[in-house]
Amino acid sequence: MSDQRLTPQAEDFARWYNEVVYRAELASQSPVRGCIIIRPYGFELWEAIKNSLDQKFKATGHQNAYFPLFIPQSYIQRESEHIEGFSPELAVVTHGGGKELEEPYVVRPTSETIIGEAFANWIQSYRDLPLLINQWSNVVRWELRPRAFLRTSEFLWQEGHTAHATREEAEAETRQMLQIYEDLAQEDAAIPVFSGLKSEKERFAGAVHTYTIEAMMRDGRALQSGTSHNLGQNFARAFDMKYLTPENKQEFCWTTSWGMSTRMVGAIIMAHGNDQGLRLPPRLAPIQVVLIPIHRNEEQRSQVMEKLQAISQGLSERGIRPHLDDREGLTPGYKFNDWELRGVPLRIELGPRDLAGGNVTLSRRDVSGKAGKQIVAIEACQSTVEDLLVQIQRNLFAEAKQFQDDHVHDVKNYEELRQVIEGNAGWARAWWAGSGADELRIQQETSATIRCFPMEQPESAEPCFFTGATPAQIALFAKAY
Amino acid sequence: MSDQRLTPQAEDFARWYNEVVYRAELASQSPVRGCIIIRPYGFELWEAIKNSLDQKFKATGHQNAYFPLFIPQSYIQRESEHIEGFSPELAVVTHGGGKELEEPYVVRPTSETIIGEAFANWIQSYRDLPLLINQWSNVVRWELRPRAFLRTSEFLWQEGHTAHATREEAEAETRQMLQIYEDLAQEDAAIPVFSGLKSEKERFAGAVHTYTIEAMMRDGRALQSGTSHNLGQNFARAFDMKYLTPENKQEFCWTTSWGMSTRMVGAIIMAHGNDQGLRLPPRLAPIQVVLIPIHRNEEQRSQVMEKLQAISQGLSERGIRPHLDDREGLTPGYKFNDWELRGVPLRIELGPRDLAGGNVTLSRRDVSGKAGKQIVAIEACQSTVEDLLVQIQRNLFAEAKQFQDDHVHDVKNYEELRQVIEGNAGWARAWWAGSGADELRIQQETSATIRCFPMEQPESAEPCFFTGATPAQIALFAKAY
Repeated sequence: MSDQRLTPQAEDFARWYNEVVYRAELASQSPVRGCIIIRPYGFELWEAIKNSLDQKFKATGHQNAYFPLFIPQSYIQRESEHIEGFSPELAVVTHGGGKELEEPYVVRPTSETIIGEAFANWIQSYRDLPLLINQWSNVVRWELRPRAFLRTSEFLWQEGHTAHATREEAEAETRQMLQIYEDLAQEDAAIPVFSGLKSEKERFAGAVHTYTIEAMMRDGRALQSGTSHNLGQNFARAFDMKYLTPENKQEFCWTTSWGMSTRMVGAIIMAHGNDQGLRLPPRLAPIQVVLIPIHRNEEQRSQVMEKLQAISQGLSERGIRPHLDDREGLTPGYKFNDWELRGVPLRIELGPRDLAGGNVTLSRRDVSGKAGKQIVAIEACQSTVEDLLVQIQRNLFAEAKQFQDDHVHDVKNYEELRQVIEGNAGWARAWWAGSGADELRIQQETSATIRCFPMEQPESAEPCFFTGATPAQIALFAKAY
Repeated sequence: MSDQRLTPQAEDFARWYNEVVYRAELASQSPVRGCIIIRPYGFELWEAIKNSLDQKFKATGHQNAYFPLFIPQSYIQRESEHIEGFSPELAVVTHGGGKELEEPYVVRPTSETIIGEAFANWIQSYRDLPLLINQWSNVVRWELRPRAFLRTSEFLWQEGHTAHATREEAEAETRQMLQIYEDLAQEDAAIPVFSGLKSEKERFAGAVHTYTIEAMMRDGRALQSGTSHNLGQNFARAFDMKYLTPENKQEFCWTTSWGMSTRMVGAIIMAHGNDQGLRLPPRLAPIQVVLIPIHRNEEQRSQVMEKLQAISQGLSERGIRPHLDDREGLTPGYKFNDWELRGVPLRIELGPRDLAGGNVTLSRRDVSGKAGKQIVAIEACQSTVEDLLVQIQRNLFAEAKQFQDDHVHDVKNYEELRQVIEGNAGWARAWWAGSGADELRIQQETSATIRCFPMEQPESAEPCFFTGATPAQIALFAKAY
């Protein structure tokens, strides 16, 4: 909270981001290296994401459970790609209860190993399948270059873990959960995403393949916002997770895992925010409507407050989340800026003149200036608010979609790709059939990686822009967080 | 799940407890010393507790936030009683990202210290008070003698932390939260509790005083089920948490903390369970009504299933949580035992004969034999279920209250106290004005501790049963978990 102007996005996007995060009180810095404190306003955003996801998980037959925070070091090492991927990031507990431990524990970076072991114990026969489990938890991955919500040494997430009788069922599950992430991003967070397959180089350590949703931030960079992994039989083999078929044969299970984290809060900040601050999508906004009283004396104050309290209560009864800002000693102008910074979708102002006319003034956060304001009769105010929240949700998505469309460029050759990436013009879309080594070369030369091969591929194909090889697939290249 | 009979409570209560926990699939053992896996059925119980508490916290103005899992070792040491209380139980992270850390981190055993530091940063003036924060999280306290849900090295809980301008406000908050815990226990979990003050010896490390709710388990032992601490200015001084008064003076804040954990799941198991297994209070039961089809052939099966599906859907629409057990290859008798073990409050059976008569059979889990059964017309079934769930909730509370009343014994002298405690006859209630050393002596000689000084004290007082001193207070002595 402050009168100070934010650093404009165009001047220094990273600085703008940090200022918004801390001044809007989404988070505070902490004394623990790489960790933040998620303050109530940021945590409510996460709770809204969590509630929506949790409903979707339960509606598709998943159940929540909780597994230990600590994982014996030997478990992490059982799946060879897995340990290679995670070992540089591990936090290790060596002492407990005043003694040195015989075997150190790793603080979970993810739980495939400890859950794999549990599944192996729980699953006997095909009757126990599919086993559909989700866990809401904290995880730790040591970060050398932390950024609030985007990369922190500890973060909050959900991790789904499922076991199936067939390859096909596991693949269907992997795609179903990707679809749920896409729905959360697009419908709740109003963020258009590209859903697609990761390249071999970018996939999860231990997976057969990884699907991802990739969102474009307003600096043109990509943010991986949710991933869903088909683990094949890799973890089932590592943990001897077998089931008895109806024909009395022992077979390895097919497993999946999928996760979305507090990183999604970062996605919302960077996909919608502008130079005045956050712009929160109504469906997830902790406060959907802020009510600001305007008055010059005590008599005016009590009249205005009485009416605003009635409006606020009416909004609550309709299932809308209002907040009446009755703080004293602050000017209306200060409050306007403060709630703009905090991204509240809609503002209601009421002063003595409005009251006399039987009106309130509504101001949209997503449309600045006069175009975003309207004066409505107090009686009509509640239904107008309802309509406007729907419009704002749609408009934030439409704006972000337009921004995305404007910043994805089809490129025919490496020169064009370099121009797009190095000129910070957005993402490059191109036909690709190169190797992991080719991809690495592009990354080293331009900082861009393949974000994904979109699920929807054109019917007719062209050769790879880099190697000329066929068959090629459409790939999206971008600098990423 | 199994046909096997449980060890009777009277034979070996601890063994009965473990069998119920694992066979009802509330939890699994884990490869991590002192830690369990909370399975979906156990986790749903915790989710129900959590949802009820979270609503109560929000209704009283508290907001959720999230603080780091790791706490710099030096922080824990700032409040001298606090470090003394917790140091034997700490888990320590010494390595992160492949390197030894300069300062080790402690895995939070509770968060007064790191939250105290944050509050000191956030609070400037009286306008920032009261600050009312809650955190849902995992904590770690190394346990040498772990027991599922009751004492595990990692457990889930909520920890509330608040800061106030005056001693009186902090005290009012401490008592308000105790009342919320009492309501949760009595109204939702159907467990009568004694609310009271802890003795000096038993209070939280760093608190001025600690309130507790104490519940009686069916083996006569006490379980501390929720605590609320008035921290005075101890942590405010340790973390320099000051505020500017309206008169422009700097004053230390007055703080509180309060917590309830997954231990509450253990309380529900041990306060209500009997030799057939769990008996879950309807308000928290993951499944409130189980529907069991009875049939001898495919035609009967499809008729019975069709009707049960309709009943199940009707129950869902009334906000009741039903489960239709359509597992094949299991006898109805097996299913009856299985759901009794799992403590589902109400069972609906439907077979061809019931169907022909237009009836279903309802069986209460809380009343065994014929007395707990009734046959009702299918059309009346849903409203009867609704009524019965309310009755079962009340009856479980009444039974537990009767058990508690029968097992609290007023004692006049040490000899009587020893008879009660050493004879495992329950709790001893007595006038007390002894010292901490006196209390310790009683504990060493009988294993009983003072569970609390109940909030409601009789008006006329008698001298201490142990020392003869006055003024004395009524104290409850018991062996405790």
